[in-house]
Amino acid sequence: MPKKCSCLVLRRLAIYYRYLSQLPSESSHALSSAEISKQLGIKASQLRQDLHWFGEFGHQGYGYDIEYLKGQLCNILHLNMIHPFIIIGAGNLGQALANYAEFERDGFILKALFDINPKLIGLRIHNVEIMDMDCLESFASKNQISIAAICTPSNNAQNVITRAVNAGIKGIWNFASPNVIVPDDVIVENVYLSESLYTLAARLDEGNKSAFNELNAH
Amino acid sequence: MPKKCSCLVLRRLAIYYRYLSQLPSESSHALSSAEISKQLGIKASQLRQDLHWFGEFGHQGYGYDIEYLKGQLCNILHLNMIHPFIIIGAGNLGQALANYAEFERDGFILKALFDINPKLIGLRIHNVEIMDMDCLESFASKNQISIAAICTPSNNAQNVITRAVNAGIKGIWNFASPNVIVPDDVIVENVYLSESLYTLAARLDEGNKSAFNELNAH
Repeated sequence: MPKKCSCLVLRRLAIYYRYLSQLPSESSHALSSAEISKQLGIKASQLRQDLHWFGEFGHQGYGYDIEYLKGQLCNILHLNMIHPFIIIGAGNLGQALANYAEFERDGFILKALFDINPKLIGLRIHNVEIMDMDCLESFASKNQISIAAICTPSNNAQNVITRAVNAGIKGIWNFASPNVIVPDDVIVENVYLSESLYTLAARLDEGNKSAFNELNAH
Repeated sequence: MPKKCSCLVLRRLAIYYRYLSQLPSESSHALSSAEISKQLGIKASQLRQDLHWFGEFGHQGYGYDIEYLKGQLCNILHLNMIHPFIIIGAGNLGQALANYAEFERDGFILKALFDINPKLIGLRIHNVEIMDMDCLESFASKNQISIAAICTPSNNAQNVITRAVNAGIKGIWNFASPNVIVPDDVIVENVYLSESLYTLAARLDEGNKSAFNELNAH
């Protein structure tokens, strides 16, 4: 299997983990692959294959024990480790991410936000300081930051990403611009909010009934 | 093909459209399915199959004409229509979405934001007013709003979604809580920021080399 596919597998494992983590606490203790697959829109055979690679989690006729599966996925995805991260760009989006407490539960510890706006520098969000961009390089290397969330305007994204990479950061969580260049050993995950909005509009549209019928005929 | 798959096809079409829309303007005029598939991590055979359902867009040995394909996807996804939408919750995330001008290019016209915070009510973001939540129902039905982006705290999500649905809104773009209940004729697209962060961490981690080797051995 080529490395490309492995990345797709990790992406699906992340989806399974997110799903299991967000089940209401009153849910049952076990779930069948058919139930999980129905909720996530991923084929049950695909789900079983993905999980099978990492060992035998399920039991015929019983399904997957939710807590056990969650624990195993947590290990596989290395969410049992601490990932110190920073946010570059402390505007609305940067501040919204900083307020998103769930990340901390999974080991993503926000160490600082960075901005060039003097009105923001020195403020604290959830007790984490907004620092001057001039301090980026020294702070990142001193604090062994592994991930930078990029929340700047798109025209500034390449510049700040290059600076983050030069400061030793290997993981870029990119909200700013899809077309950035990084060295081979740096991982970029682009976030595309528009994709889910396009999907919503297409599903919504009465006009799509014809497209659905088209598809259903195949 | 069951209806479930059709929704997955639409989701992939949305990915193709987003990708083509964001190509730098100096890109070539045509792309092969292999090139698109490499960039998106979707199998080339899957891509060809998805597009084939809607007609013959590509030419053997030439690839897909980018502008033509974009136009066709735009029609299929009904992005050539106007979708009036509102944002409920005008905190950092709501304001960040309101500032995201790209949506407007695709026909998503922001008509109002809503909040319960008296300090926010009356302010304007990009010339769009933050209104009192009390006005939600009358505004939504008067302005034929089709989509509501939900950016409230998670414990308030079900309440505001129920109100939006009762006011006739059929599309929920949900940033707030994954576990909400809506009638069958309402479409919910949940946005899970954590999935891409989990994937990034897993790809980043040196420890995953062993998992990669595991996978590559299969």
